[in-house]
Amino acid sequence: MNSGSHTPLLFILGIMLCGLSAMMLLPAIADASASNPDWQAFVGSASITLFVAMGLLLTSGSDKPFTLDVRHAFLLTAGIWIALCVFSALPFLLFNRDLGFANAVFESVSGLTTTGSTIMVNLDAMPPGILLWRSMLQWVGGIGIIVTAMMMLPLLRVGGMQLFRTESSDRSDKVVPRAAQLAAYIAIVYGALTVACAVAYLLGGMSPFDAVNHAMTTVSTGGYSTHDASFGFFEETSMDMIGTVFMILGGLPFVIYIRAIKGDPAALWRESQVQAFLAFLVVAIVIVAVGLHVQNDEGFLRALRRAAFNIISIVTTTGYANEDYTAWGPFAIACFLLFTFIGGCTGSTAGGIKIYRFEVLWLICLQQLQGLTSPNSVQPLSYNGRRLPGEVLSSVLAFLFVYGASVILLTVALAAFGLDLVTALSGAATALGNVGPGLGPVIGPAGNFYSLPDGAKLLLAAGMLLGRLELFTILVLFQRSFWKW
Amino acid sequence: MNSGSHTPLLFILGIMLCGLSAMMLLPAIADASASNPDWQAFVGSASITLFVAMGLLLTSGSDKPFTLDVRHAFLLTAGIWIALCVFSALPFLLFNRDLGFANAVFESVSGLTTTGSTIMVNLDAMPPGILLWRSMLQWVGGIGIIVTAMMMLPLLRVGGMQLFRTESSDRSDKVVPRAAQLAAYIAIVYGALTVACAVAYLLGGMSPFDAVNHAMTTVSTGGYSTHDASFGFFEETSMDMIGTVFMILGGLPFVIYIRAIKGDPAALWRESQVQAFLAFLVVAIVIVAVGLHVQNDEGFLRALRRAAFNIISIVTTTGYANEDYTAWGPFAIACFLLFTFIGGCTGSTAGGIKIYRFEVLWLICLQQLQGLTSPNSVQPLSYNGRRLPGEVLSSVLAFLFVYGASVILLTVALAAFGLDLVTALSGAATALGNVGPGLGPVIGPAGNFYSLPDGAKLLLAAGMLLGRLELFTILVLFQRSFWKW
Repeated sequence: MNSGSHTPLLFILGIMLCGLSAMMLLPAIADASASNPDWQAFVGSASITLFVAMGLLLTSGSDKPFTLDVRHAFLLTAGIWIALCVFSALPFLLFNRDLGFANAVFESVSGLTTTGSTIMVNLDAMPPGILLWRSMLQWVGGIGIIVTAMMMLPLLRVGGMQLFRTESSDRSDKVVPRAAQLAAYIAIVYGALTVACAVAYLLGGMSPFDAVNHAMTTVSTGGYSTHDASFGFFEETSMDMIGTVFMILGGLPFVIYIRAIKGDPAALWRESQVQAFLAFLVVAIVIVAVGLHVQNDEGFLRALRRAAFNIISIVTTTGYANEDYTAWGPFAIACFLLFTFIGGCTGSTAGGIKIYRFEVLWLICLQQLQGLTSPNSVQPLSYNGRRLPGEVLSSVLAFLFVYGASVILLTVALAAFGLDLVTALSGAATALGNVGPGLGPVIGPAGNFYSLPDGAKLLLAAGMLLGRLELFTILVLFQRSFWKW
Repeated sequence: MNSGSHTPLLFILGIMLCGLSAMMLLPAIADASASNPDWQAFVGSASITLFVAMGLLLTSGSDKPFTLDVRHAFLLTAGIWIALCVFSALPFLLFNRDLGFANAVFESVSGLTTTGSTIMVNLDAMPPGILLWRSMLQWVGGIGIIVTAMMMLPLLRVGGMQLFRTESSDRSDKVVPRAAQLAAYIAIVYGALTVACAVAYLLGGMSPFDAVNHAMTTVSTGGYSTHDASFGFFEETSMDMIGTVFMILGGLPFVIYIRAIKGDPAALWRESQVQAFLAFLVVAIVIVAVGLHVQNDEGFLRALRRAAFNIISIVTTTGYANEDYTAWGPFAIACFLLFTFIGGCTGSTAGGIKIYRFEVLWLICLQQLQGLTSPNSVQPLSYNGRRLPGEVLSSVLAFLFVYGASVILLTVALAAFGLDLVTALSGAATALGNVGPGLGPVIGPAGNFYSLPDGAKLLLAAGMLLGRLELFTILVLFQRSFWKW
């Protein structure tokens, strides 16, 4: 292996860590202005991160022109995400040395992957810096995954993402011709959504600090809250509704916003995955609400509102809860486990399997069924008005299987740490889908991941990263042939 | 639709029902010779079945030569299985009128599909006729599925079964040239295995009645027992070992026995699915035994023996239990849930997803992973020494997805009847896989399906039939275009 070819990757990594180091100063300022001594944890973390970043920048300077081949792209994507997760754990470690490595890494990975599972207890009494840091991790992770999903994954042809290649790299459908310009558009849309969300929360009655934090974790469909009771802390319907709207907006593909800005408002509705996503939400909410209505004899509108907030929170993989929906009975519990797998649209901040893969799957199964009785009348498949190449089909299918296999293996591994079946299964699903809450008394919407064994926490954190990078971006690194070139 | 073309199907159905009617006389003889008045239930059922069979035979007589097109083949396969399940429920209904329709159908479907879940309580006090009837249903269902899987499903191209087409219909690999001869060979092997198993049980110390009944439900990987405690009734290691051997023999593809008889003993080992099946069993048993050994501080050999019997029982989809393995801790529970999905070899009496589909899946995923970094060096896939056509790949994949979707939908539907998540999920898996026991206190290995609501029982029975006929054989009937010809 020609190690010289890697120096540009280390250079980019160094720049990223510089940025992370700068980010750490914001919570330091927040703590210092609240006269809280915890600012030191952030300044310390920033210093360590900057030190490593400088080391990388100084040793990796290279004048040669650099072309990113596909292996470098995999290494870069995985490397940046892993490195940011590790260094983001520093403030948690320095903030509370009793936390230990597993807890700190769990919290930082859960943040950056916008999962939102937490090991922090007594959030309401925490200093502002650490709360802000958690929210910032999710916010940065949110824009990070949009950029990754729109600009890197289609090139890597991971899990059928080549379907969305044209939008950033193909000439035929010039959304935004150059990558830098695309990144700028993403940042503008993401920033505008966050500001709008924060203002809405503020007008709805949140404190400015809560509004900013929740805006960051809503638009990123992350789900960290500044309160142990999550959204249950705010007993106002208006707050739920604002959250509902912005969770959905965060779960839609950002390319449609960019197209709309560039003068094509019809793009907001035209994409097949957007229609399928919204249709699924409506059907799911109505079914669960009818169940709640019939079973608990409560008003249908109230049932609809309760179902809507919590289902949208899970399907968009945000993970807020405003009540313990696992008390809604076995039907609701089974539905919520199912919802943990769905996910939002690709090119958004949402995780999960993602809607377009279910659409492709549905098309394949219909075609199969038709082929059984009329093998000669089978039509080629098309999606979103374009023909589906066989390569995309097998890529989507392989993704779905590896996803299923990962859920199963993670479940069994978690069970080996003594977690009961419901906790292990829902924990595996919620980690891989970057959702947040699981099921059962321990990690359910009213629970906390703190009491799990360290090994289980590290497994879950690995699952979050695996799910966030669409599995194959990580798995490809474990191939022996990957390292021969 | 030209209804005239269906009369040959009704004729065949009539012949099948005649056979069923004759079968019902055996338990009648058993009851009568034990001076038990329940023989009337069987004679009554036999009369009703014969009456309907005669009606079919008399109205469907046709002189025209008959060629079986693919739609007729689907209709015939599904029709025979459904009709036999319905008429086989008659003795249960007449035996105990309090049982009701749902219970009777559940028991007969569970029998014929060789699932082995039961709603019968206090088996030890039951008259011999009804116990024999349950065992006979499984025995007939076992040979029925071997014939279906070897002679019908490959023609129907269901779930990748076209992979196994050559063995019964292709000229290039003349196992047995003619279908009647093949059926005779299957019957000889199946009969010989059953007799050998019964003799072994007898020598091991079972009563003749128990030996015959358990031989029928072992070789068919069915799992009905004549005792509430299932295999736990026999506290002898030798019995477990005999059961273990014959469950494995029942889970191997019958084509290898036929080839061995015809002078090719190497065939016993050559098939890829046989090797994968046995390798999986060894790995699974060792892993669970190590878990038991470490956790309970018991001798490794004892742990190995306990794990072997129960894992082989689940993976071959038999469903005997000699103890409540759900008390082995969360790791074992998660493993057993996973095992519920695996299944044995195709062309055997075993259910589940089946080993060869996992092999094909594994090949596809490996190919995908390789293609990510070296898209130009992707090799075509081959299985068992033959090239895998794309049609088989998509057929296998579609099967796996519809299987997964069926588990999920059945789980949610069962939960709507108030079953908790573990019961609903494991119930759905055990029904679709034709395994037998689920997990949890209600339907676990120490439990019974009697207490479930009627709706849940009918759903589970539908799931068993769906799983037994490899899903698509049933689903194709729900296509509107199927009925237009």
